[in-house]
Amino acid sequence: MFKEYDIIVVGAGHAGSEAAAAAANLGSSVLLITMNMAAIAQMSCNPAMGGIAKGQIVREIDALGGYSGIVTDHTMIQYRMLNKSKGPAMWSPRAQSDRVQFSIKWRQMLEQTPNLDFWQDTVIAITTADGRVNGVKTAMGQTIKARAVILTNGTFLNGIIHIGSKQFGGGRMGDRASTGITENLTDLGFESARLKTGTPVRVDGRTIDFSKLEEQKGDDTPGRFSFTNTPKLLRQRSCYLAYTDTRVHDTLRTGFDESPMYAGRIAGRGPRYCPSIEDKIDRFSDKNRHQLFVEPEGWDTVEYYINGFSSSLPDHVQYKALTQIPGFEQAKIFRPGYAIEYDYFPPYQLHYTLETRLVENLYFAGQINGTTGYEEAAAQGLMAGINAHLKLQEKPPFILQRSEAYIGVLIDDLITKGIDEPYRMFTSRAEYRILLRQDNADLRLTGISYKLGLASRERFDRVEMKRKAVAGSMAVLAKESVTPDQVNHILEQAGTAPISQKVKLDTILLRPQISLNQLISGLPFLKDHFDHFGDLAEELIEETEILVKYQGYIEKEQELAQRLSKFENMPLKPDFDYSALSSLSFEAREKLSKIRPATIGQASRINGVSPADISVLVVFLSK
Amino acid sequence: MFKEYDIIVVGAGHAGSEAAAAAANLGSSVLLITMNMAAIAQMSCNPAMGGIAKGQIVREIDALGGYSGIVTDHTMIQYRMLNKSKGPAMWSPRAQSDRVQFSIKWRQMLEQTPNLDFWQDTVIAITTADGRVNGVKTAMGQTIKARAVILTNGTFLNGIIHIGSKQFGGGRMGDRASTGITENLTDLGFESARLKTGTPVRVDGRTIDFSKLEEQKGDDTPGRFSFTNTPKLLRQRSCYLAYTDTRVHDTLRTGFDESPMYAGRIAGRGPRYCPSIEDKIDRFSDKNRHQLFVEPEGWDTVEYYINGFSSSLPDHVQYKALTQIPGFEQAKIFRPGYAIEYDYFPPYQLHYTLETRLVENLYFAGQINGTTGYEEAAAQGLMAGINAHLKLQEKPPFILQRSEAYIGVLIDDLITKGIDEPYRMFTSRAEYRILLRQDNADLRLTGISYKLGLASRERFDRVEMKRKAVAGSMAVLAKESVTPDQVNHILEQAGTAPISQKVKLDTILLRPQISLNQLISGLPFLKDHFDHFGDLAEELIEETEILVKYQGYIEKEQELAQRLSKFENMPLKPDFDYSALSSLSFEAREKLSKIRPATIGQASRINGVSPADISVLVVFLSK
Ligand SMILES: Cc1cc2nc3c(=O)[nH]c(=O)nc-3n(C[C@H](O)[C@H](O)[C@H](O)COP(=O)(O)OP(=O)(O)OC[C@H]3O[C@@H](n4cnc5c(N)ncnc54)[C@H](O)[C@@H]3O)c2cc1C
Ligand SMILES: Cc1cc2nc3c(=O)[nH]c(=O)nc-3n(C[C@H](O)[C@H](O)[C@H](O)COP(=O)(O)OP(=O)(O)OC[C@H]3O[C@@H](n4cnc5c(N)ncnc54)[C@H](O)[C@@H]3O)c2cc1C
Repeated sequence: MFKEYDIIVVGAGHAGSEAAAAAANLGSSVLLITMNMAAIAQMSCNPAMGGIAKGQIVREIDALGGYSGIVTDHTMIQYRMLNKSKGPAMWSPRAQSDRVQFSIKWRQMLEQTPNLDFWQDTVIAITTADGRVNGVKTAMGQTIKARAVILTNGTFLNGIIHIGSKQFGGGRMGDRASTGITENLTDLGFESARLKTGTPVRVDGRTIDFSKLEEQKGDDTPGRFSFTNTPKLLRQRSCYLAYTDTRVHDTLRTGFDESPMYAGRIAGRGPRYCPSIEDKIDRFSDKNRHQLFVEPEGWDTVEYYINGFSSSLPDHVQYKALTQIPGFEQAKIFRPGYAIEYDYFPPYQLHYTLETRLVENLYFAGQINGTTGYEEAAAQGLMAGINAHLKLQEKPPFILQRSEAYIGVLIDDLITKGIDEPYRMFTSRAEYRILLRQDNADLRLTGISYKLGLASRERFDRVEMKRKAVAGSMAVLAKESVTPDQVNHILEQAGTAPISQKVKLDTILLRPQISLNQLISGLPFLKDHFDHFGDLAEELIEETEILVKYQGYIEKEQELAQRLSKFENMPLKPDFDYSALSSLSFEAREKLSKIRPATIGQASRINGVSPADISVLVVFLSK
Repeated sequence: MFKEYDIIVVGAGHAGSEAAAAAANLGSSVLLITMNMAAIAQMSCNPAMGGIAKGQIVREIDALGGYSGIVTDHTMIQYRMLNKSKGPAMWSPRAQSDRVQFSIKWRQMLEQTPNLDFWQDTVIAITTADGRVNGVKTAMGQTIKARAVILTNGTFLNGIIHIGSKQFGGGRMGDRASTGITENLTDLGFESARLKTGTPVRVDGRTIDFSKLEEQKGDDTPGRFSFTNTPKLLRQRSCYLAYTDTRVHDTLRTGFDESPMYAGRIAGRGPRYCPSIEDKIDRFSDKNRHQLFVEPEGWDTVEYYINGFSSSLPDHVQYKALTQIPGFEQAKIFRPGYAIEYDYFPPYQLHYTLETRLVENLYFAGQINGTTGYEEAAAQGLMAGINAHLKLQEKPPFILQRSEAYIGVLIDDLITKGIDEPYRMFTSRAEYRILLRQDNADLRLTGISYKLGLASRERFDRVEMKRKAVAGSMAVLAKESVTPDQVNHILEQAGTAPISQKVKLDTILLRPQISLNQLISGLPFLKDHFDHFGDLAEELIEETEILVKYQGYIEKEQELAQRLSKFENMPLKPDFDYSALSSLSFEAREKLSKIRPATIGQASRINGVSPADISVLVVFLSK
């Protein structure tokens, strides 16, 4: 019934969908096997893409030729650029999505991807020969052959759902759990462990008193995630802010006895940075209110998602506490929040390509590696899909450096730092965040991807055009001077000191009060210059302005990255005998022997490996 | 957490969705509990609504104020009026639906229905007190109170899916089965039994060679299901015809050994009129080909549904046979066909209102009563929803007669004839089918529904306007004569004999070759008359033409219906002692004692009750 595929992708969540698309677009023959074709790329939790650090990842995925940004642009109901008041390293796009349309659009795009076949079924095991994967077995009884397999099972592996003292099997509410794979892999020698995550109650919007909430509108001129020609958002839906208070907290506390977390029924660790409401009131007992985001689930539905109110307390406690929140007095709910506990495979078991160390041509991507979040999952899927293809083609692997992309930070963190709670991305995890901005993801990554054969020629040409246009515009600003007559009215309007003689434009632009758009609107020759670029102008202005204003910081980080990269890429043999190097600390010897970093850079980021240990290694290797 | 509801509806399939909407629109407070709110009114099998006799039901549902017709109109991708070459009693509208959009639209409409709340959960039992239902228990542990409960569990009760020799629990592929309810009800004294139904393989349209298939386009001027102002279909997708041949049949036969049907692993009886492909080649072994309809699943998907190829043979056999069908040589499939076996409750256990005889205020609607088909389910849901509301309001029940609606035929058949295979509607089941046409469903039913408080004033006014306009138009045709000069060119063009003196228009219209539209286009005064009605004109012309051309038949059936209805409604006491009436046949005594018909009409339609038995009863009762 089935030919031998190049690659089988197991699971069509965010990771699996990107993996399948990337591998197929590169030319591999791909079979995507998923439990339910009506739930492709379903958002299990909040109906939103992007946000702080995550928005950057989505733009990186897009720049590399992935689909997440395009799908988001087509199906979003609100767009905001977060952190706009901070420096551009912090700017993070975030979209509120139509949950159902997001999934439909993903499916459409996958169906239109050549080389990609589909099979609705549940994988129960992989098959191997000589330490190499060669196919999968399914619940319907199929054995399907492939040269490589990518597992992206998300929260489904032996998933258990908890609400108060009740618990039942499930991969997510309404879906069955997946059994067999964990046992199969542990038999093969893999280590698995448990994690947990949670989701809040869903509320009938017809029963919310929005007049008591604070409206949060989308941006006036909403942007987009994709660097391609996706549609602009013409109308938007609002989100709302609500607040808990001490009465709500007291009510929640009445459920602590029955909490599956506190009663120890959940073994897996939850995400510290995306805690349940009970975690928040427990850990921050001095805070007497917490902010909640009340988010619509789509264009035409009355369902609202109560972001920040995630809980696995008994449903009647969740409900009672909810109705004590101003605006929710009359609330009716569609379903309670719950926690889910699932198996993951600690990611030290992976190569940088996301291939497993133990079984050749087997890849893991997404929540199965201990991460949380659609964006983190999608990024890993993309990388696994690319690398599985490259490996089969006997081409060099595709690994992103920490200075190149958040995706590089993500995978490096997973492999070298390990996980003891669900991993999510933050800007603070990136040491080069002024380089890894959302605006320049295409400049950073599209060229690489084009060379791999993934990003299209069209994408590539567009980016190169942008690159030239930015350079040209910077040159104009560096060359052209303006007279006091030309600019003093602009400077005065902006509340900054006038000039008394000719000054270069880029010098003026360094003033924090002055934006490039202000200069453009006051200086016809500059307006002409940018108008000339038509569609591209807006993006070009943003990019040019950032590069001029932050040139100092950017150059400093670039230098630092280069300096470190000398050692960064200094290789460490996989069979290096760390135990023999007695000048290493005991902990370093242990960790290095376990994790076996490929480079000094990787070694330096292992918890417990100190700068002193790194010096020892560098000295030893330079001998 | 929950108030006491008037009515709880269990299951948001086609039956449950109509039931919830109707009861809520009538003013009852309703809670709709369903396992997965992302799959409301999901089409489990073919993506189509209507068809022979079923199209009439959808129009009746619409005329009564149900939602199925409106949802279909909004989400169809093709419309055809079947049987247009036959008499108007046979005309049956059929729509190809976008499977996903159909479900989304249903959910939207339900969400916008006041008095209707939602809860995502699985009901595991009903609760009762003093022989009366008073709520439900759920898997999440809720006990929710209500004054009436409508069960619409579809194919989910102890559902088992079969593919060849494999079998696993499920309510439909990808969904869990529902356990507990059957056991709970049999404990209460209900009788349950097993039925089965099946569905075909789904194929990747990118692998079908459509040049080898026969295209089947939608109607040139597509109609609509709803009598309201739903949008017109502006573009359509085509379906295709394909044919099996003896080679395909031979391949399928190789799987018979492993067939769950033939091997006896399925106990439940399947639908004789909607058989699996293996049934067809087995029962009609002399036929060396069978027609298949290749139907797109939506606007933008490549998934195709192979109508007529339903099978539970081993998947590799299904697949091999499929690839032997011309056009499918390269076919890739998304998933195999399968059969599903489930519990139903033989419907003799119901009153005409669909309330159970055993437990007061408990109603059953849909596949749980042994029917098959979305339309049959939706119709029952609507009736159960209306009747549950009326009962709580202490109003008289709403029962449709066999001469009033297909829905009347459906429920009467269920209750009096019983079921030994999944029941579907046919025009042949209706003895008054010239009265029960698709075009006059509004004239038949909207007035009644308006009186109940369900159909809106707007609907009612529109129908009364139509009724008057039809009467007026018929009067014009009956009054106005035309001269040979005026019409002979029309008659000649249509190939029928010219007239030699003035003739009444309605007499001319009786000629089979002449349509009302031909007369209108040739006779300006007639054109003026109909133009006057604007939007309504098209419908009015159809209705008027049918009434004139078929007046004879219609009047004959109306008389017959009236004559029979004298006895039809002659009541039979629920405690009537049939065994004491020795002039009844033995079989009649047995059946009548078991089924306990409410009227002579109902008694007359019981299998095994002869006209002679009916005479005995009538004579006895008239004494
Ligand atoms: C209750 C809940 C709460 C969450 N809360 C948060 C949160 O607060 N913040 C946050 O960032 N993220 C949260 N998440 C996580 C977020 O949903 C995931 O990070 C993201 O969906 C992971 O993507 P993925 O592709 O790895 O897996 P998933 O999106 O889970 O997709 C897995 C896919 O694989 C399929 N599958 C699984 N096993 C098999 C098999 N054996 N055979 C075939 N197909 C299979 C599934 O059907 C599914 O399509 C939550 C998830 C859940 C369920
Ligand atoms: C495999 C298959 C093949 C079929 N083939 C045909 C065919 O060839 N021709 C044809 O006409 N019809 C066919 N049908 C039947 C058609 O799908 C049904 O007739 C129709 O859907 C019945 O509607 P319903 O509302 O009664 O039930 P369903 O549409 O089955 O809906 C039942 C609903 O109840 C929910 N539910 C069930 N139990 C519970 C519970 N305990 N608690 C909460 N919610 C619950 C389910 O989630 C679902 O939403 C087929 C169905 C299946 C599954």
